[in-house]
Amino acid sequence: MSRSPGRKQENHKISRELFVLTYGALVAQLCKEYEKDEDVNACLDRMGYSIGIRLIDDFLARSAVKKCRSYSETADIIAQVAFKMYLGVTPSVSCSSATGNEFSLILDKNPLVDFVEELPAERASLCYCNLLCGVIRGALEMVHLAAEVTFLQDRLKGDAVTEIGITFLRKPEDRKQRR
Amino acid sequence: MSRSPGRKQENHKISRELFVLTYGALVAQLCKEYEKDEDVNACLDRMGYSIGIRLIDDFLARSAVKKCRSYSETADIIAQVAFKMYLGVTPSVSCSSATGNEFSLILDKNPLVDFVEELPAERASLCYCNLLCGVIRGALEMVHLAAEVTFLQDRLKGDAVTEIGITFLRKPEDRKQRR
Repeated sequence: MSRSPGRKQENHKISRELFVLTYGALVAQLCKEYEKDEDVNACLDRMGYSIGIRLIDDFLARSAVKKCRSYSETADIIAQVAFKMYLGVTPSVSCSSATGNEFSLILDKNPLVDFVEELPAERASLCYCNLLCGVIRGALEMVHLAAEVTFLQDRLKGDAVTEIGITFLRKPEDRKQRR
Repeated sequence: MSRSPGRKQENHKISRELFVLTYGALVAQLCKEYEKDEDVNACLDRMGYSIGIRLIDDFLARSAVKKCRSYSETADIIAQVAFKMYLGVTPSVSCSSATGNEFSLILDKNPLVDFVEELPAERASLCYCNLLCGVIRGALEMVHLAAEVTFLQDRLKGDAVTEIGITFLRKPEDRKQRR
């Protein structure tokens, strides 16, 4: 007896919950392994970086996004296209510096913590979602944009919103000179 | 300066790629931690189990699936509703025993290995996707169905397809007696 579905199509869309729970298992595993929150945070960032440098090809292919002409446009694309595509949410974007190279992605709701109520007291310095910072950093590096990406606020730590800060480190002029 | 998207809606759908790469990072981490493939496999299964017992509520709520009347119907629901929802693919189902309690889910393409070319020679016994077995086992247990779930074939190991075997361990009559 064999039953086969009528049509098998390539479908890139999945429900977020399995991802969110698997991510939770990953963080829990790292917490078992590393005593210090800083080490867990660094490990998540490194893992995210490795993911970002691979994910960028998928992103460029499926989003059909072309070269951004400004940091501001890049930040918007990350929020409105990349977050939407990979996490199903769209953060607000705000520019937080006069020099125009610092941006904040503000999440009213962070889907990655759907099943997390709060951080345990002994894990108060854990950046639970630090993988995301690494992913953004890795992906940006692959399009020749060096950036620092860190959590500035985190609802898991009692902040009103979750805020990811992106600081672009080089001006486009510098990048041109390096080529 | 602040730009906010026009409409923020709850969206459970995400692209699979971030999940697939994050899963890869999890497996790589466990391979660093455990020398023996068997230990990695067991850990993935345990993690999956913990995920399954939490994921079942989400599944029942969003699928609106009602009580299944047979093992066969249960296997179909896992393949056609659960796999579709959480991994974006629909395995074929075949019943592999005369007693009607053994089923195979057959995946021509396994989305979880999208970015994996092959297992390293020293990891020949690794069940890369063993988390899935644990998820199925955990979820089934929460609807009072004990089952053994294992990989029977794996394209990563050179098999023609990927096949997950589900053996239901108790008859519904037994379950009724236990209540």
